Amino acid sequence: MPFDPSDLPGARRDPVPPNDPVEQLVVLLARIPGLGRRSARRAALKMLQEPQRLMLPLSRALDAAAEAVGPCRVCGNLDATDPCHVCRDPRRERGLVCVVEGVSDLWALERGGAHRGLYHVLGGTLSALGGVGPEDLSIAPLVERVASGEVQEVILALPATVEGATTGHYLADRLRPLEVPVTRLAQGVPMGGALDVLDDGTLAAALRARRPA
Amino acid sequence: MPFDPSDLPGARRDPVPPNDPVEQLVVLLARIPGLGRRSARRAALKMLQEPQRLMLPLSRALDAAAEAVGPCRVCGNLDATDPCHVCRDPRRERGLVCVVEGVSDLWALERGGAHRGLYHVLGGTLSALGGVGPEDLSIAPLVERVASGEVQEVILALPATVEGATTGHYLADRLRPLEVPVTRLAQGVPMGGALDVLDDGTLAAALRARRPA
Ligand SMILES: [Zn+2]
Ligand SMILES: [Zn+2]
Repeated sequence: MPFDPSDLPGARRDPVPPNDPVEQLVVLLARIPGLGRRSARRAALKMLQEPQRLMLPLSRALDAAAEAVGPCRVCGNLDATDPCHVCRDPRRERGLVCVVEGVSDLWALERGGAHRGLYHVLGGTLSALGGVGPEDLSIAPLVERVASGEVQEVILALPATVEGATTGHYLADRLRPLEVPVTRLAQGVPMGGALDVLDDGTLAAALRARRPA
Repeated sequence: MPFDPSDLPGARRDPVPPNDPVEQLVVLLARIPGLGRRSARRAALKMLQEPQRLMLPLSRALDAAAEAVGPCRVCGNLDATDPCHVCRDPRRERGLVCVVEGVSDLWALERGGAHRGLYHVLGGTLSALGGVGPEDLSIAPLVERVASGEVQEVILALPATVEGATTGHYLADRLRPLEVPVTRLAQGVPMGGALDVLDDGTLAAALRARRPA
């Protein structure tokens, strides 16, 4: 992202008064992850030139999504139905559960279309430094889910980081007594790489070449 | 902007059904200038995790701005009042009119704080190739405004492109009979550069060093 001097504190001498609808729109657009203040200003201007096409439909979609979308009680995915559309899909292999760090990883795997089973979103990875312990993640519900007897294999699709590996080892230990095979993504995941920026082919290859954790 | 393979037609195999609120939000966020489809997806996910902070206030700001904001009948600026806050400001030099291609240039000059007069937004530049003639721009209203007698100097702050130069010459010719000095931005505007990406200091220097058109 290019450096934007107007992002520096005090660098901006803005003649637009506070409580101005234009300025408020810029401030709120700038909160969108991926848009800086300068991009937000340009976006606001483009939008104001085409309010019918760019502003009102987005406003309605934001309201509709905020109203309808929430976490799936089974897997933790974010969707407009609960259970989510993945958990409700009768064509999915219900015995195959792919464990991911976050919803963005679930969405990335779904875009690749490589996983035919269900998911379980942990909501993070274990981190001694970050003060994230097992009770901060959706680990007890995963153990419960596996203990219920419907799960035939748990695939750990965690990031290739120290935290991801630590979490994988911890989960493999916790699940061992249940005698369900636990595998993990293997080749193709680069070190330190986040799953949700990988291309679909790499994700599919890593999934096919999974091995015991 | 990084290349996003999912922007290619047909590259995406999206299991999310049509009319899904999440998918609709992604599609509409992707229309925001500066956000690609992949960024829109990440933005949607972040927003869905914090709807109270990121979604509902933006929705309200979009509605408020779409309702309140429109073009200023005097200068063409986009603002919540008509005439706009610049045209209504009693401290501005009303005899000094700065002619710009678009509202983004007006906003850039305002951020720099270098111009103490008023503005006139042309809404484009003349382009034989693009089929843009004088009647497609706000040129007649500018001539009228200058002919009314209140204007003492017209500053042409047009882009340093062939179209900008052509438009500047045309305007100087049209305004000559009215015997009002017409100047243009001079040093500091790089060739081919758009005004609204220049830093404030460059804009201020170009404005101070303006010379007869
Ligand atoms: Zn689910
Ligand atoms: Zn105005």
